[in-house]
Amino acid sequence: MAPATVTIASGAKWQDVAADRQRHRDVSIAEVRPPVPELSPEEVPLNTTEIPKKLLSEEELKITGANVEDLVKKIAAGEWSATAVANAFLRRAGLAQRLSNCITELLPKRALERAAELDKYLATNGKLIGPLHGVPISVKEHIGIKGEDLNAGYVAWVGQVAEDDALIVQYLVEAGAIIYARTTQPQTLMQIETVSNLYGTTVNPRNTTLTAGGSSGGEGALVGLRGSILGIGTDIGGSIRVPAANNGVFGFKPTVGRLPVSGWSVAMVGTESILGTIGPLSTSLEGARLFTKALVDQKPWLRQPDLVAMDWRDSAQFFPDRKLRVGVIYNDEVVRPHPPILRAMTELVAKLKGKPNIELVDWKPWKHDLAWSIIAKLYFPDGGAEDIVEVEKAGEPWLPLAKFIIHENPFCENLTIPKLWKAVAARDEYRTKYAQLWNETAETSADGRPLDVILCPAGPGVAPKHDTSRYWGYTSQWNLLDYPAIIFPTHDAVGAPDREVPYAYPDGYQPLSDSDKYSYDLWQKYGAEGYKDAPVSLQLVARRFDDEKLFKAMQILLEEAGLPAAVPA
Amino acid sequence: MAPATVTIASGAKWQDVAADRQRHRDVSIAEVRPPVPELSPEEVPLNTTEIPKKLLSEEELKITGANVEDLVKKIAAGEWSATAVANAFLRRAGLAQRLSNCITELLPKRALERAAELDKYLATNGKLIGPLHGVPISVKEHIGIKGEDLNAGYVAWVGQVAEDDALIVQYLVEAGAIIYARTTQPQTLMQIETVSNLYGTTVNPRNTTLTAGGSSGGEGALVGLRGSILGIGTDIGGSIRVPAANNGVFGFKPTVGRLPVSGWSVAMVGTESILGTIGPLSTSLEGARLFTKALVDQKPWLRQPDLVAMDWRDSAQFFPDRKLRVGVIYNDEVVRPHPPILRAMTELVAKLKGKPNIELVDWKPWKHDLAWSIIAKLYFPDGGAEDIVEVEKAGEPWLPLAKFIIHENPFCENLTIPKLWKAVAARDEYRTKYAQLWNETAETSADGRPLDVILCPAGPGVAPKHDTSRYWGYTSQWNLLDYPAIIFPTHDAVGAPDREVPYAYPDGYQPLSDSDKYSYDLWQKYGAEGYKDAPVSLQLVARRFDDEKLFKAMQILLEEAGLPAAVPA
Repeated sequence: MAPATVTIASGAKWQDVAADRQRHRDVSIAEVRPPVPELSPEEVPLNTTEIPKKLLSEEELKITGANVEDLVKKIAAGEWSATAVANAFLRRAGLAQRLSNCITELLPKRALERAAELDKYLATNGKLIGPLHGVPISVKEHIGIKGEDLNAGYVAWVGQVAEDDALIVQYLVEAGAIIYARTTQPQTLMQIETVSNLYGTTVNPRNTTLTAGGSSGGEGALVGLRGSILGIGTDIGGSIRVPAANNGVFGFKPTVGRLPVSGWSVAMVGTESILGTIGPLSTSLEGARLFTKALVDQKPWLRQPDLVAMDWRDSAQFFPDRKLRVGVIYNDEVVRPHPPILRAMTELVAKLKGKPNIELVDWKPWKHDLAWSIIAKLYFPDGGAEDIVEVEKAGEPWLPLAKFIIHENPFCENLTIPKLWKAVAARDEYRTKYAQLWNETAETSADGRPLDVILCPAGPGVAPKHDTSRYWGYTSQWNLLDYPAIIFPTHDAVGAPDREVPYAYPDGYQPLSDSDKYSYDLWQKYGAEGYKDAPVSLQLVARRFDDEKLFKAMQILLEEAGLPAAVPA
Repeated sequence: MAPATVTIASGAKWQDVAADRQRHRDVSIAEVRPPVPELSPEEVPLNTTEIPKKLLSEEELKITGANVEDLVKKIAAGEWSATAVANAFLRRAGLAQRLSNCITELLPKRALERAAELDKYLATNGKLIGPLHGVPISVKEHIGIKGEDLNAGYVAWVGQVAEDDALIVQYLVEAGAIIYARTTQPQTLMQIETVSNLYGTTVNPRNTTLTAGGSSGGEGALVGLRGSILGIGTDIGGSIRVPAANNGVFGFKPTVGRLPVSGWSVAMVGTESILGTIGPLSTSLEGARLFTKALVDQKPWLRQPDLVAMDWRDSAQFFPDRKLRVGVIYNDEVVRPHPPILRAMTELVAKLKGKPNIELVDWKPWKHDLAWSIIAKLYFPDGGAEDIVEVEKAGEPWLPLAKFIIHENPFCENLTIPKLWKAVAARDEYRTKYAQLWNETAETSADGRPLDVILCPAGPGVAPKHDTSRYWGYTSQWNLLDYPAIIFPTHDAVGAPDREVPYAYPDGYQPLSDSDKYSYDLWQKYGAEGYKDAPVSLQLVARRFDDEKLFKAMQILLEEAGLPAAVPA
């Protein structure tokens, strides 16, 4: 019998609760066969990404080197069994934990039972059970897994056990997925890094002095190390996209109401002013698309009735002539991106400029600072009271970035109902204005067509130094507007040999804002050497509900730019 | 120059403001040519519906006797000019005001200018400008009309002038409509009757001792008298459907997010817990469908970004085999419908029972009393404070049913943010449970298909006596669930010659609730004689976002039952 979980409710100290959770994690990893290689901290280099290649078998590397779309084909062809796939990912995920501290637990028993079922199904029926047959999917911890703890990063919540899989997990399993790993998240979930008192810090596997991002940082690091090729994250201000960007993988934040969130564990249940989303991180664009399509095709609105009953539209119907009108934001005029980001933007735009199918249009960011003031208020209509209660219940210390977004957030205020309405009305007014500006782009078009997508940075820089991710604007902007967005890797990295031209701000640069000053100072302090090997990622954004169109636009844009739509193995 | 509007802000008493508004209304009607016949109160019988036939010209009767779909055809064929159409409806609407007190103003100048434009367009281009070319559309007053007062039934708001047409009006005009009449609404808009201190009571043209319903009661009476064949109402608890039902016409409440509400004037801007909808009342089912399709086809989500970007689906794709699975609610188990409603339900079900295409399934209403307690709280998260301020600002007296829903509503409470969240969570739980029950109906089906629609009463009785409409449950239920619903006439009326069998409750009937006792007592007091000539209407409901499917189901159901899909001229 498993030992009882140590909890605050039963009188334990937060340190004991954390130690027990970590023990539980280690036990779960120890169940993997063959055993996951141990690594002492000294053996972990700054850039950890070569380690798996040294410690895993050739077959394991092949399997974990495949992307979702290929993996399914190989299983269908009988080349790999679901069991072999599950084992390979369990081992690589276990190793990813040693390298980046991204796992809350592995689920070898569940995974291997499911894999055996799938293998049997294929053998018996001669066909796949669904579009994700045999695809291992990793899951951010606050998304419920039947019979497992569900703490959402709050020490006080440890001991809550999910009665059932979250709805999204049920649908993915129905589509053939194997659930095998759960991943870390930060205290309160409201940080764009991943640090909790339960598990400590999830580091960036490309450079362990940098953050993996957050709040889906466990997913970011795990997918970055190919300990997963498809994971579930959640995003209310950048929490899928920041980790995807920091780790150089694909991440997709859908429009609210398209994917089911029922069965996740979050604070402030019942808030409606800004809604979180759930979506994939993946090593390939197609992996993210297949994930989304497999879910929408199951009509999740029939079970979670606040979802929108909108079928998944075939991407082929969009851009039949492949002509793409792309708005470009280099700089949101609040925080100027660090030089590596601006260089990547400039280089990508240069690649696209000559293409007859691509029309590039400068998009003037309309008051992104106002957007931040609106969303930062609506995140916490109770002034953060519920979060504060839950953190303090455990006596756990406040971590710097949770403190930053709640205690030091100048817009965070305990609202009355009329004040809430006023803030919501300001949100709606902002959304309407942005829609109007987007509509007006039709006026500058030869064929009366407005922009299709906006190309912009994914953040103010590459993966930041730990505890310095304080500017959400490049991602939260699209949560406020509820526009779907994809993060894609440029396959560039800071300080890569072919990128030795110095990065620098213009001479005599005057920061645009306090946030910009903070960002500028970071670059002056750390420079390219400090962010060495950090992947450079960018973001593509479409209008609300244009999720399918966005995938197709992303594909065309990558093809036109000559960039691969997958991360190399 | 028009005289300045008398307003509270400029120091007038509410009585003076009301008198000025009524004068303004009368002046607008006086502009119609030939003049609208005057009628002294003694000349208005209990059932007024024969009067227009006596006082209008044969051509006017022909034009106003047509339904939307036929009117457009006649105009296309050159049989009627848009100008003739506009004039006929202006006159009939003016007359409807004399009979039912349903108008806040006519817009003869705007209407005739638009009609002339349309006639010119057709003459020049040889084709219609849009799908609603020449269709006169009446508009509930709180939906903005450029340059006109926008008071939403609050005396204190008189003097606010709309800077532009509401978005829905802009789209309708774009589709070819003629805006020609504005209609009454009750104090606070939160009554299912239409009584305000500005205009008094809008009465039911079939029986002036009965209410026209509300809050779109002006539309209900006007369409009931064919002073309009297509009007815009709004509905957060039954405000399109109750007047449609009370007046024996079609009314459609769409799913939230399908039709644009931007530019309406309402209290509590920024509330999100229960959202109002906007939709048509019409003399024909096809009129309501054309209205909705013409709007959705213009992609209103591009200008009102909180709408859902869902194209209008061709109704033909639904029910290709014409097989319909219909859940039936006779009685919501909170308030037993009055005998005429139960008889109509029974007779309709009997007509459908033999049909091979129709499968009827009893639907057990799941806690509709709980549903009411949830929505009645969420209507007023501020405890009604804003409404109270706006009413009291003018010193206008509280009208009984506004008092009932705010001051005497036991669920109305000034909530804190955490209490609001709890109430919203209760709403979501209720919605999820109802969805689950609906899904479970698949288990009793031969082909694994859940119900398509629910057939149920439109209210606890036919049009009530004035000031007695206190039970919203038969309509508000579908606002809480955000299910689209259509009201349709059964072409039956209370006390019609072929309906002389006595109506009665079962012997020894024990009321189900206090609300039921109230309803029961009303029937005992007034009986069939008291509700004489009141039309008997019913309701068809579909799942959220099944708007197009609902129209097709309604059409099939009427055809199978042998009921016309339009009100006879």
